[in-house]
Amino acid sequence: MRNLQLNSHGELQHLLTIEGLPRTMLTAILDNAAPFTEVAEREVKKLPLLRGKSVFNLFFENSTRTRTTFEIAAKRLSADVINLNINTSSASKGETLLDTIDNLAAMQADMFVVRHQSSGAPFLIAEHLAATGLDHIHVVNAGDGSHAHPTQALLDMYTIRHYKRDFTQLTVAVIGDILHSRVARSQIHALTTLGVPEVRVIAPKTLLPASVERLGVRVFHDMHEGLRGVDVVMMLRLQNERMNGALLPSPQEFFKSYGLTPEKLAQAKPDAIVMHPGPMNRGVEIDSAVADGTHSVILPQVTFGIAVRMAVMSMLAGA
Amino acid sequence: MRNLQLNSHGELQHLLTIEGLPRTMLTAILDNAAPFTEVAEREVKKLPLLRGKSVFNLFFENSTRTRTTFEIAAKRLSADVINLNINTSSASKGETLLDTIDNLAAMQADMFVVRHQSSGAPFLIAEHLAATGLDHIHVVNAGDGSHAHPTQALLDMYTIRHYKRDFTQLTVAVIGDILHSRVARSQIHALTTLGVPEVRVIAPKTLLPASVERLGVRVFHDMHEGLRGVDVVMMLRLQNERMNGALLPSPQEFFKSYGLTPEKLAQAKPDAIVMHPGPMNRGVEIDSAVADGTHSVILPQVTFGIAVRMAVMSMLAGA
Amino acid sequence: MRNLQLNSHGELQHLLTIEGLPRTMLTAILDNAAPFTEVAEREVKKLPLLRGKSVFNLFFENSTRTRTTFEIAAKRLSADVINLNINTSSASKGETLLDTIDNLAAMQADMFVVRHQSSGAPFLIAEHLAATGLDHIHVVNAGDGSHAHPTQALLDMYTIRHYKRDFTQLTVAVIGDILHSRVARSQIHALTTLGVPEVRVIAPKTLLPASVERLGVRVFHDMHEGLRGVDVVMMLRLQNERMNGALLPSPQEFFKSYGLTPEKLAQAKPDAIVMHPGPMNRGVEIDSAVADGTHSVILPQVTFGIAVRMAVMSMLAGA
Repeated sequence: MRNLQLNSHGELQHLLTIEGLPRTMLTAILDNAAPFTEVAEREVKKLPLLRGKSVFNLFFENSTRTRTTFEIAAKRLSADVINLNINTSSASKGETLLDTIDNLAAMQADMFVVRHQSSGAPFLIAEHLAATGLDHIHVVNAGDGSHAHPTQALLDMYTIRHYKRDFTQLTVAVIGDILHSRVARSQIHALTTLGVPEVRVIAPKTLLPASVERLGVRVFHDMHEGLRGVDVVMMLRLQNERMNGALLPSPQEFFKSYGLTPEKLAQAKPDAIVMHPGPMNRGVEIDSAVADGTHSVILPQVTFGIAVRMAVMSMLAGA
Repeated sequence: MRNLQLNSHGELQHLLTIEGLPRTMLTAILDNAAPFTEVAEREVKKLPLLRGKSVFNLFFENSTRTRTTFEIAAKRLSADVINLNINTSSASKGETLLDTIDNLAAMQADMFVVRHQSSGAPFLIAEHLAATGLDHIHVVNAGDGSHAHPTQALLDMYTIRHYKRDFTQLTVAVIGDILHSRVARSQIHALTTLGVPEVRVIAPKTLLPASVERLGVRVFHDMHEGLRGVDVVMMLRLQNERMNGALLPSPQEFFKSYGLTPEKLAQAKPDAIVMHPGPMNRGVEIDSAVADGTHSVILPQVTFGIAVRMAVMSMLAGA
Repeated sequence: MRNLQLNSHGELQHLLTIEGLPRTMLTAILDNAAPFTEVAEREVKKLPLLRGKSVFNLFFENSTRTRTTFEIAAKRLSADVINLNINTSSASKGETLLDTIDNLAAMQADMFVVRHQSSGAPFLIAEHLAATGLDHIHVVNAGDGSHAHPTQALLDMYTIRHYKRDFTQLTVAVIGDILHSRVARSQIHALTTLGVPEVRVIAPKTLLPASVERLGVRVFHDMHEGLRGVDVVMMLRLQNERMNGALLPSPQEFFKSYGLTPEKLAQAKPDAIVMHPGPMNRGVEIDSAVADGTHSVILPQVTFGIAVRMAVMSMLAGA
């Protein structure tokens, strides 16, 4: 893993997962992102760092929101951006994933931003590029199955550092469907790597992976207990398609137990921040009074997300 | 309304509807559009006025044609353009309209071009931006429900002024489904604001709003009478989905009574111009002999439409 | 045909079909493509040749692959690219093809890249542009029905010339569903025009056009015979939707008789090259051992395809 993500000089070669990236690399990405937040304030929000580079947004799973953030980030770096929404059902009839990659590589692609419903697809692509000597093409994982979503975790870390400065004094809680969430997995790895001393997960047993404690987290099943004294509250999105399944009784019942309300939030520190990766299901995982309240840093997360993606892309491109 | 569209200096803040815009502002937009028609004749059809700006085409209702005109206009002004086709049925399951707007605003959007099936959606967005202190983001209504389509009306006014010079001597007829047409509503407001002394509407009673005369128009139900002596004939598009409904017997019967044929057009002035917002239903609202005939200025409307949209966008951006 | 594709100075006006283009023109396109292969190797893969030009990708038939190649080629020439995926079923309800073209022309289009399921559609567009005095707009056929796919044939010729240098000493075999293939038709015209002395087609009788010999080819129904001593093997893609029809028993049986395996390929010259327009159906028309083997030049075809399309576009634009 580490070898695939870092080149022989220890520079970022691909961004596939937080797991295995050293703390110095995570810190370097956050440091590099800072000046890009200023670009967004300028009259002309554009830098020439990726001029003449071809960035392919390969979305095998539909996600307008995530695709948009990468498209903006790449365009503000002056890249040529090609969006490919690849319907997997039709793709499976014809060309294989690696034939598609080979073809786009032959069109002199410089970067693939990959979203895929199968865990591991971006790894498979990166391995294939290494095996075929195409080391000049970089892969960014924009979410794969229930595995990882590293740019989301990085923008979350940027947000936490922006508001809390020092990771090593914090108590952080991640709340909701940990079991199916690639976001949660990446967040936990990022938090522990950056030295957060106490990472909690709060979820019903049915929405927790088997041996979640091995990730270095404390497990809570009750919101009041789990939120007590935390500095950072990280809500997860509840997938609509799971809400009426066997694991969850109903959105209303979930909200009653695990939805973030002002009353439950009162257990956290007075200056706690509340985060959510979006899009929010108001009234399911979060109450509007919290989402729009003074503790919420949900919209700054989005802003920082553009800067973090610009940083990752420019680091990958060696720019 | 006026306050929302104009800032405290009387400059264009949003373009939401023609209603409430002063004649000086309409004239200023038409005046500003003129030089942009020359850009289109150049070898390099590009100006740097919106360089580094992020323009979002937010289409909650599909319209390839209108989206294309805004996309070209923005690209010729060197903006970064992001197209978002948002399926409302799936949007309604998840994020609210205003959460979507907040998120795109947090990505440092500069302009939203909004098409929506619900009347008032662009107003709601502009009000929300004002309420949240995001006054630097501009909204262009690209058609909302049966309410307004201001850029269409403005390009129509540009076309009329191009061929007829003086609005204050004209008789203009708007023909077809006035009841459901956002285009008609915007055209009537623009024509009366610009001083056209006689604006007529020609339609069956079932396709007219209740108190249409209050808009300052004369009502006709017969094409021969209504077209007599007019300088400008403005046809409306008949929506396919309404054609077999209770309000209309059939496309053939509609064409017989209200379709524009050379014979009916003979009632108008010899130098009358014929307009249509497109796409045309040939043989339903307009005969091909008229659409392709010497009175038709339907294609120049399209050309002027790009210039008018470039003018609106550059005025909004303060460029 | 010739008059439509070449202007009065003998320069390329449209690229609609290989048929009727003189050998000098085909050679000129290949010669012009060569420097564009070097652009792709640069740090900044961008030239200003089409800056400020509006290129419309008009895809009436879905083809992500082909659209992508034209989009990249146009963007690397700095054009403004507008993608229009036009669903024909809905288009047929409303506007006619030529009304769509007139409208886009009125938006000051400079080039139409047209993919259409009906043979002849790009011709119809080019004729219409000529008839309406819009000679400054150029049409590139990106595949029409079972008629022609000229840029595919040109990139194939570039590939052959790259590896074999001299067309006049070659034996070339085209293999598969010749009957329905626009690619095959364009390849055969290109090969004979460029002076290839022996062009063979290998196919079952049911997949050959009635009088295919008139195109100047030798017909084979057996792979071992047809491949004997050839320099170039050009496989065709078998359309999935035809595979279970009356003309073909099954993919397995087709592969047994006409699929390219190492064993069959052994009949060709030792330095033979193997080509495929993609996307490949591995195990149907080609064995993976051949597709990924040392004779395969399938990925270089893709790379050369970008350069050839850049050459065609810049020649059309007079750049």
